[in-house]
Amino acid sequence: MKPALGTVHLVGAGPGAPDLLTVRAARLLGEADVVFYDALVSPGILALVRTDRRVAVGKRSGRHSTAQRFINKQLADAARRHRTVVRLKGGDPMLFGRAHEEIAFLHAQGIAVQVVPGVTAALAASAELQVSMTRRGAARTVAFVTPRVGEGERESTWIAAVLAADTAAIYMGAGEATAIREALLQAGKPAGTPVAVVESASLQAKVARGVLGDLPRLAASAGGPIVILLGEVYAAAAVEAARASLRSASQAA
Amino acid sequence: MKPALGTVHLVGAGPGAPDLLTVRAARLLGEADVVFYDALVSPGILALVRTDRRVAVGKRSGRHSTAQRFINKQLADAARRHRTVVRLKGGDPMLFGRAHEEIAFLHAQGIAVQVVPGVTAALAASAELQVSMTRRGAARTVAFVTPRVGEGERESTWIAAVLAADTAAIYMGAGEATAIREALLQAGKPAGTPVAVVESASLQAKVARGVLGDLPRLAASAGGPIVILLGEVYAAAAVEAARASLRSASQAA
Repeated sequence: MKPALGTVHLVGAGPGAPDLLTVRAARLLGEADVVFYDALVSPGILALVRTDRRVAVGKRSGRHSTAQRFINKQLADAARRHRTVVRLKGGDPMLFGRAHEEIAFLHAQGIAVQVVPGVTAALAASAELQVSMTRRGAARTVAFVTPRVGEGERESTWIAAVLAADTAAIYMGAGEATAIREALLQAGKPAGTPVAVVESASLQAKVARGVLGDLPRLAASAGGPIVILLGEVYAAAAVEAARASLRSASQAA
Repeated sequence: MKPALGTVHLVGAGPGAPDLLTVRAARLLGEADVVFYDALVSPGILALVRTDRRVAVGKRSGRHSTAQRFINKQLADAARRHRTVVRLKGGDPMLFGRAHEEIAFLHAQGIAVQVVPGVTAALAASAELQVSMTRRGAARTVAFVTPRVGEGERESTWIAAVLAADTAAIYMGAGEATAIREALLQAGKPAGTPVAVVESASLQAKVARGVLGDLPRLAASAGGPIVILLGEVYAAAAVEAARASLRSASQAA
């Protein structure tokens, strides 16, 4: 007889603050027999899982395929031993989350998969800034891109996607700020395009604001994960925030 | 003496399932003195708020500016009477959420604002489909767009943004499927581009899959809010899902 199989839940951990987990994700972390997590999951969220039920499955860059095969196998093995297996991924699993390989492998093994969406970093960064990505009259289209090209991947169309959208969020851009600026300037994006760099959104967020021409300086001090946001909405907001604080300062005086 | 002012929390309600609220959003709904909500918030989520603390603030189309001024005033008045005011918005407040007008107005009144991000509909739809928007080797860029153009807004660049990205999510496209198909075909998007239409993601979701040429038919039966997803990732996944179910059927036999 075939043994009963558990379910693997691919769960978005959100941007980092434990209370920005979804209610469903928090419940699954409490119930899980085992939780596989990687480097993008914050310590505050890991603290919700019993120490003896956590398994780190970080990938080293350049060894993607070997590491991925090993993770796939660990997930399938766990589903043969346990009822509730959680695979925890920073942000949302379906946006830059590399979920596909794991889902396809588990399906092929006849293992049930559930995906729990999460709050993605760009939206947490926008909440931090209090700037809408689709401000009425200024932006109706948003591009989510990464300049990172993985092993075996074709060249990314990220530059064209950024140029075509009113607002752009660039993921995994830490350490590549100079290359990002050069690529966008060369493609014709104005050096004066407003930019906001948000580090560790929802945790101890740091925000740096300026223009595309200054991007390397704006991103230079970042130690944690960053999201780079570009578009006119970031300029208008800066002006308004300044106005609002002047206004409340003068009311208080 | 100036009266103490409350805080207005702009809270993302997520895609509809109550347990896809963030933990923070669920807590705020329980604590709020008053919750202002609109038509996109699901009944299951409203049920978390005491009846006598809910205020509906739906907008009628074509009367946007008047209605928005009234909502702004209601929020500010509430912050003068209460400590914790929640403005609940479907999905995420900063992506197609019209949050800007409310934030700017409240800031100008010296009222503190907090934004709580939420799970946006396209990510809930992707979780439902179990298809990554950025599948390794197939897609590295995603456009979030809407063809809707509001009162006083310039023409949207949504078509160019869709063409430039590997994957696209079209919001607020219900009732406009024919126009969306025509605009994209005319701009050169192949009629065979894979499409998934997801209605009421995270609730009683209905999924229709096919190609761009068939979009009006795929979207025809939708009664609730839909997200239209386009891109090669939706084809490959369909093939694999079929393969996987064949494989498990043959293993079971």
